Amino acid sequence: MASRFVYYFGNGVADGGKEDKELLGGKGSNLAEMVRIGLPVPPGFTISPEVCRLYLTEKRYPEGLKEQVKAALERLEGDMGKQFGSGDFPLLVSVRSGAAASMPGMMETILNLGLNDQTVEALAKATDNERFAFDSYRRIIQMYCDEVLGINAKEFEKQLSEAKEKQGVKLDMELSAASLREVVKNYKALVEERLGQPFPAEPEVQLWGAIEAVFRSWNADRAVAYRKVEGLPDTMGTAVNVQVMVYGNMGEDSGTGVAFTRNPATGENAFFGEFLLNAQGEDVVAGIRTPHKIAEMDRLLPAQYQELVQLQHKLEQHYAEMQDLEFTVERGKLYMLQTRRGKRTAAAAVKVAVDMANEGLIDKAEAVKRVSPDQLDQLLHPRLDPKAKPEVVVTGLPASPGAASGQACFDPDLAAERAANGEKVILIREETSPDDFHGMVAAKGLVTARGGMTSHAAVVARGMGKCCVVGATGLHIDEETHSARGPGGEIKDRDWVTVDGTTGRILQGKVPTVDPEMTGDFKTLMEWADSYRDLKVRANADTPTDAKNARMLGAQGIGLCRTEHMFFEGERIQAVREMILAGNVEERRAALAKLLPMQRGDFEGIFREMAGLPVTIRTLDPPLHEFLPNKKEDQEEFAKKVGLSTQAVARLVEKHREANPMLGHRGCRLGLTYPEITEMQARAIFEAAVNVSKEGIDVLPEVMIPLVGDIKELEQQREIVLRVAEEVQQASGIKLHYLIGTMIALPRAALLAAEIAGAAEFFSFGANDLAQATYGISRDDAVTFLPHYIEAGIYKHDPFQVLDRSGVGQLVAMATANGRKTRTNLKVGVCGEHGGEPSSVEFFHDTGLDYVSCSPFRVPVARLAAAHAALARPRKGKTQA
Amino acid sequence: MASRFVYYFGNGVADGGKEDKELLGGKGSNLAEMVRIGLPVPPGFTISPEVCRLYLTEKRYPEGLKEQVKAALERLEGDMGKQFGSGDFPLLVSVRSGAAASMPGMMETILNLGLNDQTVEALAKATDNERFAFDSYRRIIQMYCDEVLGINAKEFEKQLSEAKEKQGVKLDMELSAASLREVVKNYKALVEERLGQPFPAEPEVQLWGAIEAVFRSWNADRAVAYRKVEGLPDTMGTAVNVQVMVYGNMGEDSGTGVAFTRNPATGENAFFGEFLLNAQGEDVVAGIRTPHKIAEMDRLLPAQYQELVQLQHKLEQHYAEMQDLEFTVERGKLYMLQTRRGKRTAAAAVKVAVDMANEGLIDKAEAVKRVSPDQLDQLLHPRLDPKAKPEVVVTGLPASPGAASGQACFDPDLAAERAANGEKVILIREETSPDDFHGMVAAKGLVTARGGMTSHAAVVARGMGKCCVVGATGLHIDEETHSARGPGGEIKDRDWVTVDGTTGRILQGKVPTVDPEMTGDFKTLMEWADSYRDLKVRANADTPTDAKNARMLGAQGIGLCRTEHMFFEGERIQAVREMILAGNVEERRAALAKLLPMQRGDFEGIFREMAGLPVTIRTLDPPLHEFLPNKKEDQEEFAKKVGLSTQAVARLVEKHREANPMLGHRGCRLGLTYPEITEMQARAIFEAAVNVSKEGIDVLPEVMIPLVGDIKELEQQREIVLRVAEEVQQASGIKLHYLIGTMIALPRAALLAAEIAGAAEFFSFGANDLAQATYGISRDDAVTFLPHYIEAGIYKHDPFQVLDRSGVGQLVAMATANGRKTRTNLKVGVCGEHGGEPSSVEFFHDTGLDYVSCSPFRVPVARLAAAHAALARPRKGKTQA
Repeated sequence: MASRFVYYFGNGVADGGKEDKELLGGKGSNLAEMVRIGLPVPPGFTISPEVCRLYLTEKRYPEGLKEQVKAALERLEGDMGKQFGSGDFPLLVSVRSGAAASMPGMMETILNLGLNDQTVEALAKATDNERFAFDSYRRIIQMYCDEVLGINAKEFEKQLSEAKEKQGVKLDMELSAASLREVVKNYKALVEERLGQPFPAEPEVQLWGAIEAVFRSWNADRAVAYRKVEGLPDTMGTAVNVQVMVYGNMGEDSGTGVAFTRNPATGENAFFGEFLLNAQGEDVVAGIRTPHKIAEMDRLLPAQYQELVQLQHKLEQHYAEMQDLEFTVERGKLYMLQTRRGKRTAAAAVKVAVDMANEGLIDKAEAVKRVSPDQLDQLLHPRLDPKAKPEVVVTGLPASPGAASGQACFDPDLAAERAANGEKVILIREETSPDDFHGMVAAKGLVTARGGMTSHAAVVARGMGKCCVVGATGLHIDEETHSARGPGGEIKDRDWVTVDGTTGRILQGKVPTVDPEMTGDFKTLMEWADSYRDLKVRANADTPTDAKNARMLGAQGIGLCRTEHMFFEGERIQAVREMILAGNVEERRAALAKLLPMQRGDFEGIFREMAGLPVTIRTLDPPLHEFLPNKKEDQEEFAKKVGLSTQAVARLVEKHREANPMLGHRGCRLGLTYPEITEMQARAIFEAAVNVSKEGIDVLPEVMIPLVGDIKELEQQREIVLRVAEEVQQASGIKLHYLIGTMIALPRAALLAAEIAGAAEFFSFGANDLAQATYGISRDDAVTFLPHYIEAGIYKHDPFQVLDRSGVGQLVAMATANGRKTRTNLKVGVCGEHGGEPSSVEFFHDTGLDYVSCSPFRVPVARLAAAHAALARPRKGKTQA
Repeated sequence: MASRFVYYFGNGVADGGKEDKELLGGKGSNLAEMVRIGLPVPPGFTISPEVCRLYLTEKRYPEGLKEQVKAALERLEGDMGKQFGSGDFPLLVSVRSGAAASMPGMMETILNLGLNDQTVEALAKATDNERFAFDSYRRIIQMYCDEVLGINAKEFEKQLSEAKEKQGVKLDMELSAASLREVVKNYKALVEERLGQPFPAEPEVQLWGAIEAVFRSWNADRAVAYRKVEGLPDTMGTAVNVQVMVYGNMGEDSGTGVAFTRNPATGENAFFGEFLLNAQGEDVVAGIRTPHKIAEMDRLLPAQYQELVQLQHKLEQHYAEMQDLEFTVERGKLYMLQTRRGKRTAAAAVKVAVDMANEGLIDKAEAVKRVSPDQLDQLLHPRLDPKAKPEVVVTGLPASPGAASGQACFDPDLAAERAANGEKVILIREETSPDDFHGMVAAKGLVTARGGMTSHAAVVARGMGKCCVVGATGLHIDEETHSARGPGGEIKDRDWVTVDGTTGRILQGKVPTVDPEMTGDFKTLMEWADSYRDLKVRANADTPTDAKNARMLGAQGIGLCRTEHMFFEGERIQAVREMILAGNVEERRAALAKLLPMQRGDFEGIFREMAGLPVTIRTLDPPLHEFLPNKKEDQEEFAKKVGLSTQAVARLVEKHREANPMLGHRGCRLGLTYPEITEMQARAIFEAAVNVSKEGIDVLPEVMIPLVGDIKELEQQREIVLRVAEEVQQASGIKLHYLIGTMIALPRAALLAAEIAGAAEFFSFGANDLAQATYGISRDDAVTFLPHYIEAGIYKHDPFQVLDRSGVGQLVAMATANGRKTRTNLKVGVCGEHGGEPSSVEFFHDTGLDYVSCSPFRVPVARLAAAHAALARPRKGKTQA
């Protein structure tokens, strides 16, 4: 028995339904579903994607296909009481693609199949509309030749233009029936000339040509590219839908339109769409005539409008989801041509989900699932007004979302100065270093020509929720003249530019932006999400302001407070530099003594903001030379302040230079060689904790030792922290609750986690550093090859954005499991950039982590992603909320 | 029943033997053994180290100990017919330490216990030698007070000096009995003054004081430090040996000496030692009197000498090992006081082992085990004449062994120029980069102030077998004035200096050196070793000269040929720079076309030298900017040659600058972004293979793709290599046998080995790079903290020297096992520095690798280490040779 490849729908019965996406494709399954629930759908049949797969791999059709198509066609003829390619009122069909996943506009559609010199005359007679019949005929010739036979549609357009010129009209629809007869004649001559044979008159030949064209279009460049971007499998294949033609251009009782069951921009529960009287679907898309708002249809075709309103409601109720519809009215009869899930903005997604749950259409878990965490990002940053048509200077990597306009500035000192004078500044740099921090803080947006998605600029910008574009390699910056040139023009000092961190574009001038809206629905949805998730979500925050912001966005603590970020503020850097360049322990202690009260003050502020929530503070981590005066002017200034020669300072700075600072004297290696630094930081933490405790505030510090690769490193640092904690508690008479743990940022720490857990009360994965070491790739240098790697399919994702499950993830899972074997109550979290990336959050949930920590602005994203993960695979022993 | 803690020996019977080291310590077990085999040993007893362990942890003696000691003492009295502390001829004993592992001179020894005001008179009478008795008495007071009671021996020495002055003599032995009586009186007064109580007269008190002092001395600073250096466990504890005193200073029929059963310097099978007439053991050690050669004893005490010669032969035969003996003749009677394994030079070790096997004393496997691989290094490099007493300018890290003298030079260009003029040059640099290569090649020895044991200078030096000291941080180099200053003086340009790469010292002037000797015995031993080992040993070699050298030293192929090392020779660097700075593919191909014949020529030379053996060639690995003109002069020169402005060249160079080059655009990332580089290198390899094959030589190239972290990287590079190989074979009509594999140098590659083995015919661990990434430590920057880490016991070893078994080793084992699951015949080797380090070689043997590859000069070390490992744990299914 031959397999079944063809599935019929029409006349109230269908061989499938919405659950049959794999078998019928998305479009086909929805057409079948609409038929099943009694909607008026032009009948037709669907050829399964299986046929496409076979055709593309083996260049043949399966046995029995031709017979099954023939049978379906005969059934169609019976249902419609018409014949395909003959009769008084010949049957015409369309052929459309429809894969299991939506690929709008990516593959072929061919209409009016079945028209030829005979049937066109019958159609003209039957519809009493010669103009309509010949317009349809010329359309199929043009479309078919373009898409099946490979004659460029422009050649036909040229003839059509000539015809309009000849008749002295401007629009296609003004062409008379006579003109269109002439056009058809010329079209056919063109085909004969190009192909050496006439346009195929046989309807069956037309049909099979169209089917094959749809299959071939699966591998067209744009379809392949689309699937790559969307991450869809190339092996899926497309279905083909053959459907009876209905016409919205049969007169003033006909029309066509597209509609959404709710407003896709705002989510408002109001029927929304556009409608054109006496027109075909392609006319709406082409945008030649301005369509009416859907409500106008009530005036123009009131009965059909009422029916449509009822049907759209029925569809939404049936699918329990906002629908995107296409419909046509042919001579007063309404036909539904398509229904599918309606795309929507992030704001709309949130509102629709919450509304539908409140309406009882879906439950709260479903509402939470309906909003994609990635989308949320849109809600959390200002964005460019979608109506603006800006000129692009250069496009780089979208490092930190949002948009901002300001005057270009190429120097961080200048940026800080101008910002202080109230100017809006966009800082443009080859790349940034911590030396530029004050300028970065001052700027409204950041641009760098070098660096990747996790370069210094990108990480700092995301941490501050500031829009940022990095790796704009097309931008040539001239630091001498304070100007830059990109493929789209030049930027001079103080020129107005706009940074679009959401798309990675640098735009000329001041492009208007739209402010983020935090509606009540958003808040509601996040609360629902919170009720499902197992993972806690913390934020990476280095200042009281960050902490406050993080808490507002729902952070349940601070997962990473980088003490070194505090080192750049104001006059502190001087003391930091004295500490680093100290010639001996005494000098270093003196410099540290200056830093102690500053750090203590910072911690006090953070502890107050985070009352009752845990705050993980990492001891000094980055290579010391990041703090040093690298520029000549800075060296001169520093030399003057400490009373050394500039040369001596230069020598000291040079002494701290490292070939590979990421792999150098940093992390706990600093605290081990200079224990007095750890001591000062521990003192600042515990004294702050005591002070804030005295105010009646609950303080939960967690001291995190960075870059541990061996338990002995942790033990020695832990000893210092414990001793200082004891001293501070003794002196104050206040008992503190605190933890000491470590960052797992090196493969060796992950490999030896069982041992290291013996000295750690918590692990926090530094997923970025861990990826860096596991891949042997520096985030800052990856820009030279990583884009090529993604392009060439070597990596599916940038491993600094999406956690690499097979490599880095293997270490994370191993370390979590082994660490807990040693210490069952080991708290495990992650504090890298990945903590706010949905697919990574899913992995962390599945791996059994206790929390993720991310930039404050990613906290809602992580909360939602954690809820999605928990809904997909709840943890054992968890009772569903 | 109380446990047993005390073990007797004497009178032909002993409670243990040489197999009881754990129970009796090394010294005690050998004393017991000597008694057992009938040698004349003064009787005594041994207190087990268990007692020491208990005493040190719980500050108490075990129950029953006192009784057991008392019983042993009584047995001693019975055997000797004397009483301890009384009688006409009182019994005197010594107390000596003796741990299971030898710690010569590290713990206490106290002699003459049992002497007091009464027994000294009895002794004087019994021996008829008042002088001897009082000399013995003053010795015990001095020794006991210093070691047990904490009065510095110098205070007694002062009184002794005064006595000599008073009597008008120079030597201790010239002091009269009367003077010594006076000395004893003064000593006792001093004791009373210092302690407020008299010197303990009770022999039992003396004995227990001495025993306790031995136990305490286990934790003395020098003993702790010694154990740390030797890697001995602190928990072991020491035994105490209590033994009847015999005296070599009882007249002209007495004497004492130390001897070796063979010559410890040369290994010659001839009785070797020193002897002093009428002296005690400590007199020999003190070096006041010049001892006679042992043969002199034949003249002075002929009967005893003949007995000694027989006994030493008996001992060597019994132990089947060269012995280090101590003996005393007391009034014509020979006593053996100690026997132990004799320490020896590397040359002696080899000769003794081979001779003993040839004599049938041991088998060949045992001979192989008798030589330590670490020791072999001594045989492979010239070394400083041990008789020289040089002045040390500074001490750094001993990066590459051997010694060389030359004139100081601070500039690599100058070094090359001077060497060309026949000068001997020592190159002294802050640190080296590949730019300095020509200068390094030209120099006789290298010194850097920065960098660790595996810094560029160190690795290159070891590769070339050139002596090198790195990380001489005490050396301040002034590049302006071409001079350097260290704690031991200044070095100016052209000053003669000597580099001792074996100890890490930089010495003033020309210190004479001794050339290495490669004796026939050495060759024999290596052949025996080869017959046992499972691991193959290859060499890292980049040139035909290296390859020839490696083969001479027994390499079974090349495990790592770094193509980039060829890039620095002569005019090649110009073409390399053109390749890197090329603006487009065409320019790059043009530059590569210049390099192709050069690389092909190199490979031809290497293939010829390695006829019939595999040659693993790694495609381009290091970051490109290593090859670029970084200095202004070089940039000017390059700019002139290619017709660009110096500024443009500087910009291009800057464009290639990376923040962390080790983690940047290097390894296969180069070949993936510039496939034409891989293509050129593959072409050079296969064309060379074809050309050499045509000469009738068997060529076995193995192409190694570096720094792979994902199978896709390997697949894409593999495709290029396969295509080029096919093309070259097609064009020549010659079929080549070759493999394509990858270096496992990244944690991710190790983690995904199962997958990667799908595209790799071999794995070669880049153990250094792997350690670098696993630890997150750059070899070049580690000098800032690694020495402190070793010092503070955080790391036991430098992980770049000794493979870290728990972390990096875990990855190696995992990758080997998983890789072979995918591909059972996967060839697995290692090509980092660890391939020539004995403990690492042992690990690689145990992990089942096929081969190790190391610097040519380490090949014999690796061969021997591999044999040791195989002898310790032969692989399953292996039939012992």
